Amino acid sequence: MSARNSSETARVIPEATVARLPVYLRALTALSESGIRTCSSEELATAAGVNSAKLRKDLSYLGSYGTRGVGYDVEYLRYQIAREIGVTQDWPVVIVGIGNLGHALANYSGFRSRGFRVVALLDADPERHDELVAGVAVQPFDDLESIVEEHGVAIGVIATPALAAQNVADRMVAAGISSILNFAPAVLTVPEGVDVRKVDLSIELQILAYHEQRKAHGAQGSLPDGVADGVPEVTEAAL
Amino acid sequence: MSARNSSETARVIPEATVARLPVYLRALTALSESGIRTCSSEELATAAGVNSAKLRKDLSYLGSYGTRGVGYDVEYLRYQIAREIGVTQDWPVVIVGIGNLGHALANYSGFRSRGFRVVALLDADPERHDELVAGVAVQPFDDLESIVEEHGVAIGVIATPALAAQNVADRMVAAGISSILNFAPAVLTVPEGVDVRKVDLSIELQILAYHEQRKAHGAQGSLPDGVADGVPEVTEAAL
Repeated sequence: MSARNSSETARVIPEATVARLPVYLRALTALSESGIRTCSSEELATAAGVNSAKLRKDLSYLGSYGTRGVGYDVEYLRYQIAREIGVTQDWPVVIVGIGNLGHALANYSGFRSRGFRVVALLDADPERHDELVAGVAVQPFDDLESIVEEHGVAIGVIATPALAAQNVADRMVAAGISSILNFAPAVLTVPEGVDVRKVDLSIELQILAYHEQRKAHGAQGSLPDGVADGVPEVTEAAL
Repeated sequence: MSARNSSETARVIPEATVARLPVYLRALTALSESGIRTCSSEELATAAGVNSAKLRKDLSYLGSYGTRGVGYDVEYLRYQIAREIGVTQDWPVVIVGIGNLGHALANYSGFRSRGFRVVALLDADPERHDELVAGVAVQPFDDLESIVEEHGVAIGVIATPALAAQNVADRMVAAGISSILNFAPAVLTVPEGVDVRKVDLSIELQILAYHEQRKAHGAQGSLPDGVADGVPEVTEAAL
């Protein structure tokens, strides 16, 4: 029987919901750490910064509807979301490019706590080799292929300068890595079937700038997410 | 006449659209750098990773509808979005905590290219003072108040360890900063009117893990964003 026929594959989750699941997981972890055992959809929605109707719809894709009058069981919902994302399993990760950003990523506790295990730190610069960062020795970039094979690495993180990034991506793909998290300020070309996500550290700053600008004008900054559907379209005259 | 009565404030943009504007800006910048002068909503949607109906709705809040048969003028749309976000003006920013992450942020070219000017790097550790990072000298954290006043800083970036973050946020708010970008793994409490955005570097990794898990099961990973509305709700039996 093919995996495509199993009930597992019947659950098709919209991309926007997939992107919010880690945010719910983060909010639930914070609630759990505060000793909270159940929460309403409103409480969870507020903690996650979304509106509660959207939250309930998102969680319905996971088959989580909560209990009327009680809400959601924090620990169970955490487990359900973590399982859905796939972070209840262990993900070996390699980081390539151990400059300041690579150092910061290697030391970042948020990876380990969510199931990502940094199995190797690679850098092309021989001067960095054998340096210990967060307890892991920096190795030559040329060890990539053997490390990927040995640890079954599926996810690679690129923290190199822009000019090196495409070559690193090509080598990662050739070695069998099928998901790349790219911190380098470069657009990567990869074959079909390989996922690339690019982190732009300025995006959150831009969202803050939008709100700052609105505060400076004494205006209402934006609508809570999801409220807009009830708002009349702006007229051409107003623009 | 109060600013609240100006036509400027008539444009109310949903929070989810605000969050996508920087993504469109990044995609338009990439198109522009490839020498592309006009693009269809489909091309821009693909470059930004959203569906084109959502893109057109988002841009309609800015009064940008493109030209039938021609599409959008890349440079003009870039300008419109940059103006809407507020990044056509100059935003002085301070970064507090100049460890590896603070170094990486100070060197990050994506801030400068989008209108964010790092006017000061602050650290409580005297051993770091007077070190030059990206051409800016590290100064004592106690200089925060005078720097905020001198440069009119509205946005602060926290890159300290978790334990120091709340104190840094309190001092920032007292000094007059009203937007905080928090990289520290800590939940911050701030007064009403102050915006905090928390960067979680593991969120993108979790989204990759979701897709990796699906690839491993030979299943379809997720629907393109926005397609889900046409998909029947999953039944309880399938869950």
